[in-house]
Amino acid sequence: MPKLPPRLQTLTDSLDGLGIDAMLVTNETNVRYLCGFTGDSTYLLVSNQNTVILSDGRYETQIAQQCPTLPAIIRSPSEMLPKLTQSALEDGGYRRVGIEADDLTLDGFRRLTDKIVDIQWVETSGQIQRQRMFKDEVEIKITREAVRIAEQAWTTLREKITPEWTELDLAYRLEAEMRALGAEGCSFAPIVAAGAAGALPHYEPSTNKLGSGTTMLLDWGAKFEGYASDLTRTFYRNQPSDRFRKAYEVVLEAQLAAIDAMKPGAAASKIDAAARGVIEKAGMGEAFKHGLGHGVGLYIHEFPRLSSSSSETIEAGMIITVEPGVYFEGDFGIRIEDDVLITSTGNEVLSSLPKGLDDSCLIL
Amino acid sequence: MPKLPPRLQTLTDSLDGLGIDAMLVTNETNVRYLCGFTGDSTYLLVSNQNTVILSDGRYETQIAQQCPTLPAIIRSPSEMLPKLTQSALEDGGYRRVGIEADDLTLDGFRRLTDKIVDIQWVETSGQIQRQRMFKDEVEIKITREAVRIAEQAWTTLREKITPEWTELDLAYRLEAEMRALGAEGCSFAPIVAAGAAGALPHYEPSTNKLGSGTTMLLDWGAKFEGYASDLTRTFYRNQPSDRFRKAYEVVLEAQLAAIDAMKPGAAASKIDAAARGVIEKAGMGEAFKHGLGHGVGLYIHEFPRLSSSSSETIEAGMIITVEPGVYFEGDFGIRIEDDVLITSTGNEVLSSLPKGLDDSCLIL
Repeated sequence: MPKLPPRLQTLTDSLDGLGIDAMLVTNETNVRYLCGFTGDSTYLLVSNQNTVILSDGRYETQIAQQCPTLPAIIRSPSEMLPKLTQSALEDGGYRRVGIEADDLTLDGFRRLTDKIVDIQWVETSGQIQRQRMFKDEVEIKITREAVRIAEQAWTTLREKITPEWTELDLAYRLEAEMRALGAEGCSFAPIVAAGAAGALPHYEPSTNKLGSGTTMLLDWGAKFEGYASDLTRTFYRNQPSDRFRKAYEVVLEAQLAAIDAMKPGAAASKIDAAARGVIEKAGMGEAFKHGLGHGVGLYIHEFPRLSSSSSETIEAGMIITVEPGVYFEGDFGIRIEDDVLITSTGNEVLSSLPKGLDDSCLIL
Repeated sequence: MPKLPPRLQTLTDSLDGLGIDAMLVTNETNVRYLCGFTGDSTYLLVSNQNTVILSDGRYETQIAQQCPTLPAIIRSPSEMLPKLTQSALEDGGYRRVGIEADDLTLDGFRRLTDKIVDIQWVETSGQIQRQRMFKDEVEIKITREAVRIAEQAWTTLREKITPEWTELDLAYRLEAEMRALGAEGCSFAPIVAAGAAGALPHYEPSTNKLGSGTTMLLDWGAKFEGYASDLTRTFYRNQPSDRFRKAYEVVLEAQLAAIDAMKPGAAASKIDAAARGVIEKAGMGEAFKHGLGHGVGLYIHEFPRLSSSSSETIEAGMIITVEPGVYFEGDFGIRIEDDVLITSTGNEVLSSLPKGLDDSCLIL
């Protein structure tokens, strides 16, 4: 058989340790990650002897183009995917088969295991998601572009916005700009929050005008070739209030302290503590109501998590958001977020939009 | 306890027939349908004695606003949702509990059932989805608006398009127009296919110019207050070819025949046959490569399905797409799709964009 692509090779190398002969990959994003196929309704059956892709006739051409080295087993319209999978499992003679228990529904499990008696099913969770924490050169390059697109879109719009634009106007135009720059779209629904709305968790952009507040929180990102960027900046109009100025400097100092602590071998909880310590010392600990950051990749939220309860360790190749924030109900919220690549010697901040207090004045 | 909202009442009325004391609703869309709550990470525990919503502190205010008559049980940050659900199940003293096996993952099932020994779990599939087939007055009104928005957006753009616009240009502008008209966005990624691309299944809009083909297939819809519309029209430039003209008239005749057959009590397979018969009689049966239509609502694809193998019966209150099509590789594809409400006496076509051959000339 031909040599497997590296991401698949890494997975097959882990099968013995999991005590399984083969791994059935049902999660659409994991299938894409492992073999590059971007369609749906398709499984990967991964083993040391024989890795195959299981799909249907609609995707035959696309699979040949996107995964030219992988053998494909194509079902007929009358045969369902679970049945095709059973045949492939039986043909392979596998006895212990890993399944993605965090993806497969109970119904899906019943259909898959129906009438199969001599296979032992091993429920795994997050196995490939943990592999996805470590980005390869291709993924890093794509993520750089996802960051660049998000930054350029905002830089363009910053020159155009007026107090009459609504939060929704800005959200939609950001999306349009990012698409025009080659993005598939937003990596998540942007948060555009004028004034006190910036202090609300789960806020969705409304028809409130940007000019209705003296501050604006903007959390946005682009999706490019499947990969997400995730940035936040917080702005003020004219002159910041003393309270805003003080809080902004604290959040920025906290973010820089966390970034300074990000290097291979660092505990995720320690990085969170580096930021949280700065905010607590300033007496605003209660106002920092969430974790510090998260991995970003094919999903907007991936492993690892930077939080006080995280037991994970940071390693080279991870791309992680760093986003401390403080929220004062009825007044304003401040969050500053960048995407950080962990390198062999430390880290590289992939995003480059200015974030000093003086850079954050919006003339509206 | 206060009287339950009608959708919840319908579900509780069905519990005895399912042989269960309570139903645990985990599917986010089903939760929204039953009680109006639009957030995530929230379950509904439905029973005749006591129906409660299970959520966390982030959503306390939103639940009070969206579901004022439902008692809410709010977990503390340290308690996870499966644990909270177990407590609620134990407090209710339920012995046979229905779960949504088409929604709950294996992992989710393990977490839910972990350490609970005296409950019998009954796996249900599509229970609430089948209830959702029957739209109430509120849903019909919202869907009318979703249709109206999609139609108005296209009507506006039809006056503006030029041969220089790319397929992606039209797709994005449709979305922007629909949003400006109050939609949340598209109900699915629009298909804009110039020329022979209209014959390809799963086609995605590209940077090909509209002027690059002599025909254009457009399949789009709006999402309004959660509900989808789904329309298709096919256009030609200047003069249609004889082959296009012939095929268009056949598809339109097939669609009208199907709509004519849509009334309460009609078998879904018979409606499919009404359209398929027309196309087969014209010698184009092979070119009609998919089912005739599907229910539309909170999901773009819902029950019932109109196809030759469907065993379902059409009833008043259903909203169903009718979308026959023929596809000639390397030449063109034609599909005409409307959204049809089944009434007590027959049906009402909710969409009203003209679809005669003469109406389908685009001046590009």
